[in-house]
Amino acid sequence: MSSFKVTILGSGAAVPFKGRHLTSHLVNAGKEFFLVDCGEGTQFQIIRYGIKYHKISRIFISHLHGDHFYGLFGLLSTMHLNHRAKELHIHGPRGLDEVITTCFRNSTTVLSYPTFFHETAPDKVETIYDSELIEVNSFPLKHSINCTGFVFREKKKKRKIVPEKLPLNLPYEYYEDLKNGRDVNFAEQTVLSSDCTLPPEKSKSYAFCSDTRFDLETANYCKEVNLIYHEATFLHKHLDRAEATFHTTAKEAGIIAKEARAKQLIIGHYSARYGDLDGLLEEAKAVFPNTLLAIEGKTYSVG
Amino acid sequence: MSSFKVTILGSGAAVPFKGRHLTSHLVNAGKEFFLVDCGEGTQFQIIRYGIKYHKISRIFISHLHGDHFYGLFGLLSTMHLNHRAKELHIHGPRGLDEVITTCFRNSTTVLSYPTFFHETAPDKVETIYDSELIEVNSFPLKHSINCTGFVFREKKKKRKIVPEKLPLNLPYEYYEDLKNGRDVNFAEQTVLSSDCTLPPEKSKSYAFCSDTRFDLETANYCKEVNLIYHEATFLHKHLDRAEATFHTTAKEAGIIAKEARAKQLIIGHYSARYGDLDGLLEEAKAVFPNTLLAIEGKTYSVG
Repeated sequence: MSSFKVTILGSGAAVPFKGRHLTSHLVNAGKEFFLVDCGEGTQFQIIRYGIKYHKISRIFISHLHGDHFYGLFGLLSTMHLNHRAKELHIHGPRGLDEVITTCFRNSTTVLSYPTFFHETAPDKVETIYDSELIEVNSFPLKHSINCTGFVFREKKKKRKIVPEKLPLNLPYEYYEDLKNGRDVNFAEQTVLSSDCTLPPEKSKSYAFCSDTRFDLETANYCKEVNLIYHEATFLHKHLDRAEATFHTTAKEAGIIAKEARAKQLIIGHYSARYGDLDGLLEEAKAVFPNTLLAIEGKTYSVG
Repeated sequence: MSSFKVTILGSGAAVPFKGRHLTSHLVNAGKEFFLVDCGEGTQFQIIRYGIKYHKISRIFISHLHGDHFYGLFGLLSTMHLNHRAKELHIHGPRGLDEVITTCFRNSTTVLSYPTFFHETAPDKVETIYDSELIEVNSFPLKHSINCTGFVFREKKKKRKIVPEKLPLNLPYEYYEDLKNGRDVNFAEQTVLSSDCTLPPEKSKSYAFCSDTRFDLETANYCKEVNLIYHEATFLHKHLDRAEATFHTTAKEAGIIAKEARAKQLIIGHYSARYGDLDGLLEEAKAVFPNTLLAIEGKTYSVG
């Protein structure tokens, strides 16, 4: 896969404040573009950062709190007004379909493109998308309403051909077997895959965990991912607020990343009470040093 | 009334483009604050311009196209998350109630404040709000979906007391009669209202007309208003687009203002195809010289 990266479109929690927008991540894995959550104003952020929204093929919605999906109505409408024809798949909790279709029925909007709703399971791990390049799993989070996280894992990559090690005139149709580790017979000889290919690059993975109360089970669902985004709505000194609202503190987000043996952590979903984010970053870094802040408009490489 | 003014929060049509936001006007009439339409991102604009949204007592929605109401979900939620207790009245077409309640039911949102939906009539003029200070009428517009405009008219004002013309020691309770033009008896004398008051200021009025195809009937509904906002989505050279999409050209908006004998016209709801708005302004001014462009963040005095 040529690229695997995540662009943060919104980093704030609950209400727009201090210039922050509401949760939405663009995940680009090779030729595939996904949107994860879609708070109000996401289409404005997509335009601001020059993202081509017609490329988005799937939208994953974690849960039905407004700051994670109220931008969906407008984004779907704008795609329609711009004559999108390509089908769009929307994965989200039960009820999302009803909300969207009730809204569009009353707006007399008949979308220009086919839309498919896929209901996520609130209580188990499920493979919800599986392509040549990538597999997406949903998993349960522990919020005040049904909520799932998502893990995007590159498929096992193929071995890399070393051209100078290939027998002269080997036809192209043999390459695929060799890249898949299979030996081939050519000109009455056995060509060993291991002789003329290099081991594949390690597959990379990205986990999205928002919104959730701290739950070590989350680490199990995200084992050894390259990049984990975990909400860190509060400082640990406001643990009582985190517990009351089913959110996580920055320290706890660090613990999840450490337990998952992730390579890198991004924290976000900042409470409007914090103007300065350094405290949140320092707190997470004390537990998990390779932590970054979610900054709107910034793109993070996975792996 | 101490003030009567309109603040433009969004000036663009259909899709957010060229930095423009979607339709929403804040109308401030004395102590009363109203929102007219609420496109996606309205709550961001409210915060940007330092507007105290808890003061808004009524929201008027012209029609159920997304660019005029998709911001309502987020604004109502934010009022809730900020613990609003004061009741909120929402006036809009049939279906708005269903859309909002379906959305909040699925979000498990139970608003912290009482909300009252009032269905607007798509086919007649109706008084939909009537207070001590102001009367609001809805009237039919000619769009591709049920749509109403709104006229805000100050109530007839009271005469102004001229203190030095009052009899000595006249008790305060007589003032109200005098201000209302009624003579009073005091100390065995008749005190004439006309002797000790000045005529009242003329009542002012603001009309909101969006979205609509050009329709001279609109001018009848807005007769002699001080300020009329009329959509002018297209230049007249794109009349075919205006006709096809049930919108109005800038020239036609000027004609409506002229026919209504309005004092001033604001045009807006600009198509995304126009970067430069001078052409729209010049076209309207050629018919109705006292025309202004709707500029986001700008406040316009009524009268």
